[in-house]
Amino acid sequence: MRASVLSEPGVIEIRERPVPTPGPGDVLVRVASVGVCGSDAHYYREGRIGEFVVDQPIVLGHEASGTVVGVGAGVPAARIGQRVSIEPQRPDPDSDESRRGLYNLCPHMQFYATPPIDGALAEYVTIGSAFAHAIPDEMSEDAAALCEPLSVAIATTRKAGVTAGSRVLIAGAGPIGIAMVQTALAFGATEVVVSDLDPRRLDVATKFGATAVLDPREQDVAGLHVDAFVDASGAPSAVLAGIQAVRPAGSVVLVGMGAPEMTLPVQTIQNRELVLTGVFRYANTWPTAIALARSGRVDLDSMVTGRFPLAEAEQALNADRTPGSLKAVVRVQE
Amino acid sequence: MRASVLSEPGVIEIRERPVPTPGPGDVLVRVASVGVCGSDAHYYREGRIGEFVVDQPIVLGHEASGTVVGVGAGVPAARIGQRVSIEPQRPDPDSDESRRGLYNLCPHMQFYATPPIDGALAEYVTIGSAFAHAIPDEMSEDAAALCEPLSVAIATTRKAGVTAGSRVLIAGAGPIGIAMVQTALAFGATEVVVSDLDPRRLDVATKFGATAVLDPREQDVAGLHVDAFVDASGAPSAVLAGIQAVRPAGSVVLVGMGAPEMTLPVQTIQNRELVLTGVFRYANTWPTAIALARSGRVDLDSMVTGRFPLAEAEQALNADRTPGSLKAVVRVQE
Amino acid sequence: MRASVLSEPGVIEIRERPVPTPGPGDVLVRVASVGVCGSDAHYYREGRIGEFVVDQPIVLGHEASGTVVGVGAGVPAARIGQRVSIEPQRPDPDSDESRRGLYNLCPHMQFYATPPIDGALAEYVTIGSAFAHAIPDEMSEDAAALCEPLSVAIATTRKAGVTAGSRVLIAGAGPIGIAMVQTALAFGATEVVVSDLDPRRLDVATKFGATAVLDPREQDVAGLHVDAFVDASGAPSAVLAGIQAVRPAGSVVLVGMGAPEMTLPVQTIQNRELVLTGVFRYANTWPTAIALARSGRVDLDSMVTGRFPLAEAEQALNADRTPGSLKAVVRVQE
Amino acid sequence: MRASVLSEPGVIEIRERPVPTPGPGDVLVRVASVGVCGSDAHYYREGRIGEFVVDQPIVLGHEASGTVVGVGAGVPAARIGQRVSIEPQRPDPDSDESRRGLYNLCPHMQFYATPPIDGALAEYVTIGSAFAHAIPDEMSEDAAALCEPLSVAIATTRKAGVTAGSRVLIAGAGPIGIAMVQTALAFGATEVVVSDLDPRRLDVATKFGATAVLDPREQDVAGLHVDAFVDASGAPSAVLAGIQAVRPAGSVVLVGMGAPEMTLPVQTIQNRELVLTGVFRYANTWPTAIALARSGRVDLDSMVTGRFPLAEAEQALNADRTPGSLKAVVRVQE
Repeated sequence: MRASVLSEPGVIEIRERPVPTPGPGDVLVRVASVGVCGSDAHYYREGRIGEFVVDQPIVLGHEASGTVVGVGAGVPAARIGQRVSIEPQRPDPDSDESRRGLYNLCPHMQFYATPPIDGALAEYVTIGSAFAHAIPDEMSEDAAALCEPLSVAIATTRKAGVTAGSRVLIAGAGPIGIAMVQTALAFGATEVVVSDLDPRRLDVATKFGATAVLDPREQDVAGLHVDAFVDASGAPSAVLAGIQAVRPAGSVVLVGMGAPEMTLPVQTIQNRELVLTGVFRYANTWPTAIALARSGRVDLDSMVTGRFPLAEAEQALNADRTPGSLKAVVRVQE
Repeated sequence: MRASVLSEPGVIEIRERPVPTPGPGDVLVRVASVGVCGSDAHYYREGRIGEFVVDQPIVLGHEASGTVVGVGAGVPAARIGQRVSIEPQRPDPDSDESRRGLYNLCPHMQFYATPPIDGALAEYVTIGSAFAHAIPDEMSEDAAALCEPLSVAIATTRKAGVTAGSRVLIAGAGPIGIAMVQTALAFGATEVVVSDLDPRRLDVATKFGATAVLDPREQDVAGLHVDAFVDASGAPSAVLAGIQAVRPAGSVVLVGMGAPEMTLPVQTIQNRELVLTGVFRYANTWPTAIALARSGRVDLDSMVTGRFPLAEAEQALNADRTPGSLKAVVRVQE
Repeated sequence: MRASVLSEPGVIEIRERPVPTPGPGDVLVRVASVGVCGSDAHYYREGRIGEFVVDQPIVLGHEASGTVVGVGAGVPAARIGQRVSIEPQRPDPDSDESRRGLYNLCPHMQFYATPPIDGALAEYVTIGSAFAHAIPDEMSEDAAALCEPLSVAIATTRKAGVTAGSRVLIAGAGPIGIAMVQTALAFGATEVVVSDLDPRRLDVATKFGATAVLDPREQDVAGLHVDAFVDASGAPSAVLAGIQAVRPAGSVVLVGMGAPEMTLPVQTIQNRELVLTGVFRYANTWPTAIALARSGRVDLDSMVTGRFPLAEAEQALNADRTPGSLKAVVRVQE
Repeated sequence: MRASVLSEPGVIEIRERPVPTPGPGDVLVRVASVGVCGSDAHYYREGRIGEFVVDQPIVLGHEASGTVVGVGAGVPAARIGQRVSIEPQRPDPDSDESRRGLYNLCPHMQFYATPPIDGALAEYVTIGSAFAHAIPDEMSEDAAALCEPLSVAIATTRKAGVTAGSRVLIAGAGPIGIAMVQTALAFGATEVVVSDLDPRRLDVATKFGATAVLDPREQDVAGLHVDAFVDASGAPSAVLAGIQAVRPAGSVVLVGMGAPEMTLPVQTIQNRELVLTGVFRYANTWPTAIALARSGRVDLDSMVTGRFPLAEAEQALNADRTPGSLKAVVRVQE
């Protein structure tokens, strides 16, 4: 099969690889659509994210959909032919974290496109059968791939405690920020304010339902008194400002990746008893993601701003440098 | 002022009463619209609900809106002229329950139209200023009154744990059931199934957004595997059937008033670790109610199926016997 | 190996069985101590519990400890020689319930001594390696076996929301009631009231730390205003009375097995917004159980009132008919 | 009456003041014992804490007990003679925060000894009757005063999610750290590790039940894998190290007062999904505090290391500079 391989930082090439064999409990999926994530672009350009270093060729891509074409031992053959959205993780079910339902925090996790585990920019992949989620007929392959960033947004929205009538501030109108706008609304938020430096991205936020948008250089968020602040920017100034926007006992969730350390206004956190946490992937989000997409409460297809064949995966990885780009997908079989 | 008084069971008459004087911390409200609740009709016909007995003339009505026309000591005069939705309760802020945020469970509660406390079917009422919630200009007086049953539905939806992607079964398509359909959707539910014996009421449920409706005599709900079952019918058969519809670790919330005791399938509750609870009024729901109504996520005006002047309050109390009636309101100043 | 087999209701006999082979991920345990549970006695006498019917010979016993003597594929040989407490369940890690951390509710559960799965009254058993919990040197084999009923009590105490300063009412001073007294105290309860008809059992409750005991025929519990009521009796009268003892917003947890249906005071549940649930086994309790036993906060050894060799398993099953018996254990290797 | 007044930073003097008159809903308390808190010493020495500035003479002291000697309008005279522990806050019951049970976060709070509100280092004080908590006969006046720092520890322990079997790391063995050791144990923690630079304070921690103590200069806490880390030191290095000690999905609670801003390892917080929050006073803690003290689960009397008459309040404020001092109390009537 053909696979798009990051052979060294900055070098992507198509290589022939053997089609993988599904292990016990696995399915073999013919990949249809793969979304490009900021982390893919980061590995491509920098060769590392924090402690995770690309020290051997790796296949990128962890937002993927496709069709089941084979099964490993113990998996019903009836799954063959099923269209699926891939949850790209393999936790150890016996870890303390998995047993408590927090399998995303499993210390033995194997995650697509996190060194040294290969990702989905290839014609075929395997995954645990319970992590290949059947999708409804009316869901597109692209939308099925984007259930992955949607899952990040769902996990974040849950941690932020967003519910009916919530007021939410989101910093950063990139793909996660835009997915967050949609999930905040789907969870019942009635005010969703988005801050970003780029007016074009703010327009996109408005299009996806933000009830207000602002440029933080022009407008102070400190008085907003929101129930939850979500940082999807990774920018220290956005985090500092956003924390000041939160009402007493409100929540702060950091989903954007930034520096390892950040200076935070701990006295404000203490005096208002704010609850601050971060999101590391997701657990138990796919059924919700599919339900939200199927019901029309979120619109994933409209997030796609570029489609590329597998041979042009490198262009897809660089699409984030095109003004107006929100989410590029690689159409693997085209 | 004129007040509609239940002088004895089955007898409603207009009487002259002095305009009440707002006490310290109170506002005086000129009443605009009062919704009629099943409990009002019950007091009118039976003279009691459980331990609460009408043993002296009482003014009914606890779903009310109006305009602030006076203030008691300690309340800013600036509130005069404000249009408000009334939260019809006076808890003791010093009770253990109030201090923990559960003021609806305060043992010293004084609640509108619960003997011996007078309700809102009168030209003027008083209420604690923090329980007279300002409403936006675009909200109608009727919608402001119906923030009360909406609050019951919000309290129920919270207890049911409804969130994005939830599957919910609601038994009973009366006013609370219909409000529940709307709040379940507003909290993010993607499947809202309603059961009722009356096909006309099922049509109303569909109109307000139910994703499926059924007649329990024709269709068994046992296999639905919903996340939450809400009983808004008070019918033992509906409760028994509904409990069987809930997935493991799901929730059962009883909001409909029925018999003091009921035979429940405790083994099912145990084996599935279902969580069963009831709703007694509401606490901290009005901001959510107003936000949901203002944002258009719930439609209260369309719930009104009859409007009556104060002099015809008795007809309003009997409107529930008119086929197709959902919610009657009394327009007090008309 | 020798196994104690329930060949038909009322008939227990020692049979030779092959030593089981540990499957992938399993360990083979030489059984040391097995506690006898009320459910074992029920199967022995009645041949069924609700839907679970003994229709072929079965080995009873699900409270077990022992020593690892073999490992299946994928399990480190270093586990051989380890003393363990057995968590007697095999959930499917891919079920929705397991993924959410509620593996006790997994619909594909295989549980020791629940037809048709064999239990632990045998010289050797196998179990998933993560369900064989290493115990500290100072913990006895009997105490390790009794981590199972302790786990039931821990699961119950968690659901009851018991914490520092809680007031708890426990109906029934059998093994689960006595374990509950200890866990309630370990979770910080400062008042633990136990009701039982048998004064001898009430004395035992006092010995294990109950702060008050009562005979419900002589003393009404309705005014107790406890934070939580736990029924470990299965008696409808105890449940009815206990619910009346709970403060507004308090909890009711049913752990005792009784009739499939029960008449409950739903109006009290509604008016006080009580939260009622049941306990079905346990999840994620063993680390807590071992920590509590090791720290001396619970005393499991003192709960043992009778020890029997494997050949006398039938006497152990009948020990509950001996006045003063609390927990019989079978010493399998003696 | 006599009052100890901070007339300007560093100057404490006894002044004659009129006995205060209890307002409606208040009680008048003859003060018995007042604990000295670090914040009192800070105001005394620095004249301010953050935004709160001593710009007029103020009475310090907010850890107080005494006897009710008068009542305001609406308070039963039967309260006169009652021994009480004072919860030194006056929230507005109508604020959003109070209504939700978070009255400590009420924006209109009036708190003892926080400028410009006078505290308890005086012969008489008034407080809302529901904030004067009756104490059992066997509780000493000093212990009743120390229900205040105990309440801080209870609020912290709740936020940290400490429960049976928890493993907890506490940085700082001052009065709050020592109270935390006791509450962690009372909530069921089985491992309580305390870090401090001062070996004498570590000995005190051991005496109050810490299961392990350490000097962070000699021992790294990073591998501890605790469920919760509580900072009661305010030292940035302790916070940084402590966060690394927490297991995935564990909690971090900041109760020590430090700098307004602090550099935190946000990547660790994100990757482990740690939940970080702060504690600002307390709500609904007094019943728990009294229950824990009465049951013997915490020992407040042993925390007192110095007793001073009112005339020597200044020495009490400086007692924290005496090696081995843990908590000084002022015996107001002696």
